[in-house]
Amino acid sequence: MDIAAFRAALGDIPVQDNPRIVQQKSRDHYWYSPRLKQQLENVTAQLVVSPRSVDEVVTVLREAFKYDVPVTPRGAGTGNYGQAMPLSGGVMLDLMNLNKVIKIEQDRVRAEAGVILEQLDEQTIHAVNGELRFHPSTYRMASLGGFIAGGSGGVGSIRWGGLRNFGNILGLKVVTCEAEPRILDLRGPDILKVAHAYGTNGIIVEAEMPLTAHYDWVDMMVGFDSIIDACAFAEQVALQDGLLCKEISPVAAPVAHDYFNRHRPYIRSREQSVVLLMAAPAAVPALVDFVAFHEGDLLYRADTLTPEEKAKLPPIYELAWNHTTLRGLKIDPTITYLQTQYPDLAHVKWAVDTFGDEMPMHIEMTRFDGRVVFSGLPIVRYSSEERLEEIIRLHEENGCLVFNPHRYTLEEGGMKRTDRAQLQFKKEADPKGILNPGKMIAWDDPDFDFESGRTWLFTGLYTLGGAAE
Amino acid sequence: MDIAAFRAALGDIPVQDNPRIVQQKSRDHYWYSPRLKQQLENVTAQLVVSPRSVDEVVTVLREAFKYDVPVTPRGAGTGNYGQAMPLSGGVMLDLMNLNKVIKIEQDRVRAEAGVILEQLDEQTIHAVNGELRFHPSTYRMASLGGFIAGGSGGVGSIRWGGLRNFGNILGLKVVTCEAEPRILDLRGPDILKVAHAYGTNGIIVEAEMPLTAHYDWVDMMVGFDSIIDACAFAEQVALQDGLLCKEISPVAAPVAHDYFNRHRPYIRSREQSVVLLMAAPAAVPALVDFVAFHEGDLLYRADTLTPEEKAKLPPIYELAWNHTTLRGLKIDPTITYLQTQYPDLAHVKWAVDTFGDEMPMHIEMTRFDGRVVFSGLPIVRYSSEERLEEIIRLHEENGCLVFNPHRYTLEEGGMKRTDRAQLQFKKEADPKGILNPGKMIAWDDPDFDFESGRTWLFTGLYTLGGAAE
Ligand SMILES: Cc1cc2nc3c(=O)[nH]c(=O)nc-3n(C[C@H](O)[C@H](O)[C@H](O)COP(=O)(O)OP(=O)(O)OC[C@H]3O[C@@H](n4cnc5c(N)ncnc54)[C@H](O)[C@@H]3O)c2cc1C
Ligand SMILES: Cc1cc2nc3c(=O)[nH]c(=O)nc-3n(C[C@H](O)[C@H](O)[C@H](O)COP(=O)(O)OP(=O)(O)OC[C@H]3O[C@@H](n4cnc5c(N)ncnc54)[C@H](O)[C@@H]3O)c2cc1C
Repeated sequence: MDIAAFRAALGDIPVQDNPRIVQQKSRDHYWYSPRLKQQLENVTAQLVVSPRSVDEVVTVLREAFKYDVPVTPRGAGTGNYGQAMPLSGGVMLDLMNLNKVIKIEQDRVRAEAGVILEQLDEQTIHAVNGELRFHPSTYRMASLGGFIAGGSGGVGSIRWGGLRNFGNILGLKVVTCEAEPRILDLRGPDILKVAHAYGTNGIIVEAEMPLTAHYDWVDMMVGFDSIIDACAFAEQVALQDGLLCKEISPVAAPVAHDYFNRHRPYIRSREQSVVLLMAAPAAVPALVDFVAFHEGDLLYRADTLTPEEKAKLPPIYELAWNHTTLRGLKIDPTITYLQTQYPDLAHVKWAVDTFGDEMPMHIEMTRFDGRVVFSGLPIVRYSSEERLEEIIRLHEENGCLVFNPHRYTLEEGGMKRTDRAQLQFKKEADPKGILNPGKMIAWDDPDFDFESGRTWLFTGLYTLGGAAE
Repeated sequence: MDIAAFRAALGDIPVQDNPRIVQQKSRDHYWYSPRLKQQLENVTAQLVVSPRSVDEVVTVLREAFKYDVPVTPRGAGTGNYGQAMPLSGGVMLDLMNLNKVIKIEQDRVRAEAGVILEQLDEQTIHAVNGELRFHPSTYRMASLGGFIAGGSGGVGSIRWGGLRNFGNILGLKVVTCEAEPRILDLRGPDILKVAHAYGTNGIIVEAEMPLTAHYDWVDMMVGFDSIIDACAFAEQVALQDGLLCKEISPVAAPVAHDYFNRHRPYIRSREQSVVLLMAAPAAVPALVDFVAFHEGDLLYRADTLTPEEKAKLPPIYELAWNHTTLRGLKIDPTITYLQTQYPDLAHVKWAVDTFGDEMPMHIEMTRFDGRVVFSGLPIVRYSSEERLEEIIRLHEENGCLVFNPHRYTLEEGGMKRTDRAQLQFKKEADPKGILNPGKMIAWDDPDFDFESGRTWLFTGLYTLGGAAE
């Protein structure tokens, strides 16, 4: 790697070598995991480069290829598996300057990769009253490209599934890392090669996404005596075809009370479990009746608060998904979390009974290949790596999937099955293997077993066959 | 009943007593069923009255109450269980003059009961680019009130379930039949008392319905070698959370070839089974890839036809739902049909294997309490009533639901469970029992067993508890 020659070749493309800033930009939310925190603490790049156009991205990749400089793409750096950590040093490719919205149509939008999701929605809502189908809870910070390359789903996944599902990304423009980088327009099944690939096989510079109808979603919180009651209610809401919700998330006591600072005044006691909800305005009256029918305790609905009360509260989605964990970490830095999937309520109950307060349950109701499932993001009161592994093992032995968030490679996390087509695509798009090195095991280990019996969230092209089983 | 006094009391409200017209308006599509055809052939009212406003409806009901005149409400008369047949004579209350759209908001519409569904959508699409969540295949004829009182679901039910689901009707304005008729605004669970009650417990004069985003849905037809392959593909499409479809309907050979006259040029042979699809434009490219992946034969996609070709073809939804049967009846008046529900593909296969060409399969993929199921509308090559009963019995014995379309009462059809709350409501709203007499068994038979072990499509208030099991 000849970083000096690389830098000199960049012309007036903005770079940054202030070590403090470079180190800052070399990090994401890896510290969510005690294991990754330890492993990745000292990882850093030498330089940050911030191109302002696709042409400049092409220049960066051409010169990186020429001078053997590892390139780790970066959006907002909110990923929390260390995905954006530059294991081999080199350059951080900061894409946040590529933030133009290119074209808004009634049912879709095309934008550059660095646009912040909330800002993208603001523009599409204004233009066509449309919004993204789903977004991570880091909506107000995360970039479109970072979401596609590093995320999976989020608020809205109860209706639309996730990025893994065919049809949820319409097109990607990707720049390869070669002597003369190519700009590829990926459509159809090819999209799945690059979605959730951590930028290991191409730099996303543009994406075309479907839009759905925008609503002024109403935040609600409903209390229950037990997390199982909360989950049972949440499942029934999720199965109600006529009640349009964007978010349904049961959270076990004492998490809501202990971690949701600003909502605490609405929560009756430390023993109360809650369900977080975002409902379309037309669904709210029916949902209120539904809460009463299930003997839930309607703690809070945003549409009847005064503007002053409302201004004090973060949006409910910032209590959900990984924000639950984030709020927990702020109050108790010793906790961590897991990513699980429970096929039904009985499995949730098994986990709750087995782990009790060692693992306060947090569920996100999602659709997974057309079926409503319980996606778990349970808090874990961390004692040791061995115990964490044991909890994972017990889950797997009892028919519950685990997507390990304490691993920084695509395959070990269990999110992405790197199949032959994807590996082949990396061979073409990144022949030197300098895009985000070390994140795709299949690249580094030619003997990697593609057919290992594991379950993957992103099954790649197999998704087309239906269920990811 | 004093029909002359009744008529005299109506003032200038339009009436019609020409016997031919009265007889015509006393009929619906009851002749779909050989059994109902025989039973109801001679049923007729004495008079048709066509009020132009809610006030006039109130007048009609007040005078009907006073003079003991049975009142059978009627929209477009497209119901096909004889729901709108005046078993006790009296007056047909024609509601098609009540056709004003009252208020269109971004996410909902309020309109009078007599508005034709397609015309309602035209106005909401124009105003807010919104449309009804689902509609019967009689979209171009049926009224809003008739759909709510006599229908169940249709095109769009793969996404939104049906009228039975809480949240799919936001409010109803209903006129009671009393000495001094009241105008009730029903909301929440009360709506379920009147939905699919055949007008037996109140006359719907207005309804408020949620809107969803309008798309220029693209009609498609895909061919398969067998109906089971077609169903397997249809299920996979239905389970794809990212592929937005409004209609997914597998139809067995030789139905498509024999009955779909104008689409016949696109169908390869009499042996080809097909899947009818309506997809959002953004989903079409992905769906085309999906067809290829499943080795389907893409017979026809409307977005690539010339305007001349397109003009020759009815919309694909007019091949689906009960239109499949209608097209069959035009060609072979001896056929009839059933309404079934298969919980999974194995049950569909059982039915296909068991009945073969005696019952060419026609499935509508729908969501039923959050789950994708196979709703069957199979064609039946009718031989005798006994054999029809046997086919029904075999279904029930093999774990497949049947909603018998050869019965004109709410309960015998199996569509509506008349529970105590609904019966109580009829006592209040129609104390003399003159609204559509003879259609609610629970009214006529005080010993009726509410708890009989049957399965009902409309479980009434029980729906709130979740699955209708
Ligand atoms: C509090 C919190 C809550 C979260 N909630 C969710 C959630 O609900 N759902 C969810 O899916 N995730 C969630 N995450 C993870 C993360 O925030 C999201 O996936 C987010 O979309 C990542 O976007 P980013 O711009 O921050 O990407 P980054 O973290 O910058 O990058 C993510 C990955 O993509 C690569 N990358 C970035 N940009 C590009 C590009 N243009 N081309 C190629 N590769 C690129 C990076 O190298 C990295 O591997 C959460 C994280 C936190 C800390
Ligand atoms: C070819 C064909 C296809 C069909 N496809 C479908 C389908 O996909 N889905 C489906 O659900 N149905 C379907 N049907 C049945 C029927 O077309 C629909 O349910 C339709 O919505 C009925 O509307 P209508 O205005 O014709 O009602 P009508 O037939 O006039 O009345 C239906 C019932 O409601 C009562 N009624 C009518 N108006 C009112 C009112 N304002 N207040 C109280 N009661 C009232 C009547 O007394 C009667 O009992 C189909 C029928 C045919 C013939």
